[in-house]
Amino acid sequence: MKHVETLRWTGGVDGCLGLIDQTLLPLEFVEIQCHDVETVWEAVKMLRVRGAPAIGVAAAYGVCLGLQTVAGQDEATLYARLDEAADYLASSRPTAVNLFWALERMKSKAAELRGSTAAQIADGLLAEARTIHEEDRRMCRAIGRHGAGLLADGQGVLTHCNAGGLATADYGTALAVIFAAAESGKRLHVYVDETRPLLQGSRLTAWELQQRGIEATLICDSMAAVVMREGRVQAVVTGADRIAANGDVANKIGTYGVALSAAAHQIPFYVAAPTSTFDLALPSGAEIPIEQRDPREITHGFGRQTAPEGIGVYNPAFDVTPAELIAAIICERGLIRPVTRQRVAQVAGSGGPAASDTCSM
Amino acid sequence: MKHVETLRWTGGVDGCLGLIDQTLLPLEFVEIQCHDVETVWEAVKMLRVRGAPAIGVAAAYGVCLGLQTVAGQDEATLYARLDEAADYLASSRPTAVNLFWALERMKSKAAELRGSTAAQIADGLLAEARTIHEEDRRMCRAIGRHGAGLLADGQGVLTHCNAGGLATADYGTALAVIFAAAESGKRLHVYVDETRPLLQGSRLTAWELQQRGIEATLICDSMAAVVMREGRVQAVVTGADRIAANGDVANKIGTYGVALSAAAHQIPFYVAAPTSTFDLALPSGAEIPIEQRDPREITHGFGRQTAPEGIGVYNPAFDVTPAELIAAIICERGLIRPVTRQRVAQVAGSGGPAASDTCSM
Repeated sequence: MKHVETLRWTGGVDGCLGLIDQTLLPLEFVEIQCHDVETVWEAVKMLRVRGAPAIGVAAAYGVCLGLQTVAGQDEATLYARLDEAADYLASSRPTAVNLFWALERMKSKAAELRGSTAAQIADGLLAEARTIHEEDRRMCRAIGRHGAGLLADGQGVLTHCNAGGLATADYGTALAVIFAAAESGKRLHVYVDETRPLLQGSRLTAWELQQRGIEATLICDSMAAVVMREGRVQAVVTGADRIAANGDVANKIGTYGVALSAAAHQIPFYVAAPTSTFDLALPSGAEIPIEQRDPREITHGFGRQTAPEGIGVYNPAFDVTPAELIAAIICERGLIRPVTRQRVAQVAGSGGPAASDTCSM
Repeated sequence: MKHVETLRWTGGVDGCLGLIDQTLLPLEFVEIQCHDVETVWEAVKMLRVRGAPAIGVAAAYGVCLGLQTVAGQDEATLYARLDEAADYLASSRPTAVNLFWALERMKSKAAELRGSTAAQIADGLLAEARTIHEEDRRMCRAIGRHGAGLLADGQGVLTHCNAGGLATADYGTALAVIFAAAESGKRLHVYVDETRPLLQGSRLTAWELQQRGIEATLICDSMAAVVMREGRVQAVVTGADRIAANGDVANKIGTYGVALSAAAHQIPFYVAAPTSTFDLALPSGAEIPIEQRDPREITHGFGRQTAPEGIGVYNPAFDVTPAELIAAIICERGLIRPVTRQRVAQVAGSGGPAASDTCSM
């Protein structure tokens, strides 16, 4: 299997950050080399790098690139530049929570390093960026490990949208489960919902599966139900954007319909997501705010107008799948199964590892 | 409400056939004037006119246009030309059942007219084409009349694909129910599935609803489930491509998923279709053959590649919704409710009008 690295730091403190330009996929595979903070900013802004974890990692390395221009200078210059680079990066996608989280973490690390030499500070910050990167990688691997046992050799697995390596530093969340199962020798066939309106399924997920040599079949979202009825699918795995305290899951629009179809065919529906996805302040999915997106994503979806001028459009970015339709949530600490408020609190609420069910399958 | 005529014959035996060019919708409204059989052939071939009933009507008028070139000549010349025109029209879409049915009917009529004057034959054949047209119009109106009572004032109604006026000689089947309810003064809000891969919902249904001044909201197919969960929809009405003896319905891909979502939200799911759609030789939906279509409809939606080269694709044109998910089938003879083998035989099997339940709502 070919290993695709969404982000890659090459060299030491004077190194550079390589990023796959996701706007060109699946037609072209181009790795951008970022030698300065401006190139990282542009890549985040233009969605060349996307997905919350991946954006956080890119921003952390972006701070390191920013410091290269003041290498060896006095502490005041160094810290002024650090703040400047962080503020600049924060302006690239002002709604991306992970971006701010990563920049804050880099600033905290810098604060710890006050009084060190310029070289020590540069080394320390690069090490912190590498740690953020490595933690995300470990998160993906742990999700893969915990989830792989849920899939059996020879199964058909359906996924929606892209919860793959391109959204993370390693091989994703939902796709991590599939990749880990495949690495353990199970032969799977993945049905990929194209995922209208933005086609993350056909553009990104299909590409990732192809890269790793996993058998995949692309379908329109409206074909998921019949593919299940025909017995082609034995499990569904998707990612999550936000999970409430009762286990209700907000994810890319269309996920709820897939979950209903899975339930109608007695097919287990799994969600794979790191514990950072849980928002325990929200009692249920009803409290998750749903972003409404540009109607043109639907009316002009293929670069060409395909609907009458002036037609009303409803374009929610996410929908909410109720906990009772979810067989298990797979997170880096283990399985949440059954998906109940109590079990969510046990696993996602604590900082520690999950209880009994964690690695049982 | 603006009246949109998919097909319109102007004048007498030396008249012409006007057709809305559906390939230009929704961006341009152009009516083609067909003065010869070649223009009709090209319009059917290029899908400028589509939908089984509409194609049949176009072909019937096409025969009349073919005869104009031999007006007033001897019987042998006339009948030779008739066969030539019919064979030529049959080659425009060799899989369209209604096309052959309409051409056969015109030939039978011509056979009846043997021995009449040239003028009588031309008159008789134009009258037959008008009858085919009128029968389709009456079928639409009857479906509208029988189905309108199923919808209540203020309701949200979801539809999938285009079973509207553009597919028929009048105002459609599924849309006839909506139009008839609206004409009786009910205010409805229609949710229109865009209907991937070919977007008949966004291109045609959204346009038809807009033309008739009915409130409509366009959604991606994957949004139907959440729109139902949010309480926006109280009924679903779709068309049908083929109905088996037990009431299983083959219709545009995605219909089955909509029916499952409707069932999960206790929303009645109705199918509107003329009795000519029933294929009573097929015991159940399992026997309905499902056409597989070009993968490029999914990978190259509207001219641009959006999936990786070489990815596997599954692209069935239709799916089958089992009878148990259908609250009623609305046909020109009345309602089939409940949808059982027995009730299908009663209504669709006989040539006569349906029994007790026909106009009850």
